Amino acid sequence: METLTVALGERSYPIHIGAGLLRRADLITSRLPQKKVAIVTNRTVAPLYLAPLQQALEEAGVEVVTVTLPDGESFKNWETLNEIFDALLENRCERSTTLLALGGGVIGDLAGFAAAVYQRGVPFIQLPTTLLAQVDSAVGGKTAINHPLGKNMIGAFYQPAAVITDTDTLSTLPPREFAAGLAETIKYGLIRDRAFFDWLERNVHRLVGREPEALAYAIERSCVLKAEIVSVDEREEGQRALLNFGHTFGHAIEAGLGFGSWLHGEAVSAGMVLAARVAHKLGLMSVEDVTRMSRLLSAAGLPVSAPELGLERYLELMGHDKKVRDGRNRFILLRRIGEAFVSDDVSGAALADVLQHPQAHA
Amino acid sequence: METLTVALGERSYPIHIGAGLLRRADLITSRLPQKKVAIVTNRTVAPLYLAPLQQALEEAGVEVVTVTLPDGESFKNWETLNEIFDALLENRCERSTTLLALGGGVIGDLAGFAAAVYQRGVPFIQLPTTLLAQVDSAVGGKTAINHPLGKNMIGAFYQPAAVITDTDTLSTLPPREFAAGLAETIKYGLIRDRAFFDWLERNVHRLVGREPEALAYAIERSCVLKAEIVSVDEREEGQRALLNFGHTFGHAIEAGLGFGSWLHGEAVSAGMVLAARVAHKLGLMSVEDVTRMSRLLSAAGLPVSAPELGLERYLELMGHDKKVRDGRNRFILLRRIGEAFVSDDVSGAALADVLQHPQAHA
Repeated sequence: METLTVALGERSYPIHIGAGLLRRADLITSRLPQKKVAIVTNRTVAPLYLAPLQQALEEAGVEVVTVTLPDGESFKNWETLNEIFDALLENRCERSTTLLALGGGVIGDLAGFAAAVYQRGVPFIQLPTTLLAQVDSAVGGKTAINHPLGKNMIGAFYQPAAVITDTDTLSTLPPREFAAGLAETIKYGLIRDRAFFDWLERNVHRLVGREPEALAYAIERSCVLKAEIVSVDEREEGQRALLNFGHTFGHAIEAGLGFGSWLHGEAVSAGMVLAARVAHKLGLMSVEDVTRMSRLLSAAGLPVSAPELGLERYLELMGHDKKVRDGRNRFILLRRIGEAFVSDDVSGAALADVLQHPQAHA
Repeated sequence: METLTVALGERSYPIHIGAGLLRRADLITSRLPQKKVAIVTNRTVAPLYLAPLQQALEEAGVEVVTVTLPDGESFKNWETLNEIFDALLENRCERSTTLLALGGGVIGDLAGFAAAVYQRGVPFIQLPTTLLAQVDSAVGGKTAINHPLGKNMIGAFYQPAAVITDTDTLSTLPPREFAAGLAETIKYGLIRDRAFFDWLERNVHRLVGREPEALAYAIERSCVLKAEIVSVDEREEGQRALLNFGHTFGHAIEAGLGFGSWLHGEAVSAGMVLAARVAHKLGLMSVEDVTRMSRLLSAAGLPVSAPELGLERYLELMGHDKKVRDGRNRFILLRRIGEAFVSDDVSGAALADVLQHPQAHA
């Protein structure tokens, strides 16, 4: 087991990464203010991992409430959130009851936001079971639900008490979900760590083949990079925005096609290519770097062409981005692989050029 | 104008108290990160105070979005909250758009919670127009909505950037609303300041007659007492719980009769009498103190007899209280007027005795 720390003063917490950790009830019980938890999971994950976790906790003397939700991004909304509140209240969960998020990014976002606002805040622990959640969404304290007019529009910055990543869970992950997680992994190399990008290029076949050693390294390296950024900018007032590389376009793709049609990681992959093409048009990123990036994403099984939504619709969807300031979109661009920055100076012409031909290549 | 400070490190903020402050746009504009605000108010307050406020802000060059909600505790729910989100998104409000809560406790709780979670948090300013909001709910950063199974069950601790109290607004307040505000004012004397309680006894007729000088003093003293407590215990991990004196019973009364039937302050008044009777039965509070307390509440125009809900129903409703820990209710009790403490050792017999006869006196 590897253990990293997200350094946030008195709200610091560990990330444990290793095989078989869902059976390690001690990692959870050592952090409970009260011997009562509510496990929030979904109908896909529950049959695979709920029973052994629940049993391990009950054997340790913990009272366990379970909340099993429908699976998918299209359920990341108020109605599903309210199912959690109903269950917590019906089972008399208190301010010191801990919520456990057992699942992927949607479950982590839902359970984390529920924890942030139930009785004005209760503790929670992330138990991510998808690659995307393990490398990205379970770390850093962003929680949210979607609104019909925009993704993640309602939420909170709310840090977990711990992140416990059992890499064994990746063995049951469907191929599309797995590739979607690789998109965020590749993103870290692109925005911040050219050497990691190089490593990913050399080892992408091992990752796609789900070799445990390669996966463990990729997860650990991703968490280290994310933890560094979150520690210096918890509330996204500065460089944390770099983690949104590809996400302004990606969120527009997700919302434009209807949440759940493309997976988040798939939309981010195509969104990163759009952002790279914009950067290239602005004379920033070389065609070689854009091509390397596209090739790696393709090798990971990810889409590199965005859907044709029409320029107008793209611009309308991007108008609801949380990075908009004074009516202007701000974009995360790359100067080169490994070096990202925030730009509020993207010309409408470059943007229109790329969005009118979303399926073109650099 | 008097100005107090709620001392919370870098989240410290001022409370301005005075006549005519809603016309002082400068108090607001000096705190805006962006010249755009969304005023959240209700259909009762809007005709009285919205137009001049909006005009003053627009003259200062501020873009103003308005959201006018239905009035009443029964609307402090998710559906109404979502009306705010819809309006914010339709009007492209951004992360630096400031929400202004213009109204009483319900508007402050709704707009404050909306600010806490819209795009994971935007600034907000409290402009309380009821006595209850001015002495209590606008100060301290508690925001929430109700759930059918309990009051204020979903919410956040989220501090405003400023509280601007225009005492002129009290002239239009209906008598029941006004008395409800006095309940919380009297509460401060009861839990923490016997000298203030004495002053209230001597001046209750001036308050009921709405003499501006007496009102200004009562508001200021209440805010000083609340700010002291919030500064040392923002998230209610210790003595902030004392502010909930009468509220465990009060919330049960409100929920039991249906939110909006009794005003919050009315329920708290009757709830404080129940709590005092419990304390008396436990040999803590003298009959003289219980009687003085009841007399002052009555003189303020408040109910001192709780409704007959039945013992079972009372206990069931109180089971959802946020102070419950490990299945046990914790109660705020008085040793004497001016001295409150938290007890998790209230015998079922004393409780049953009082709740079976909620309309009796000490």
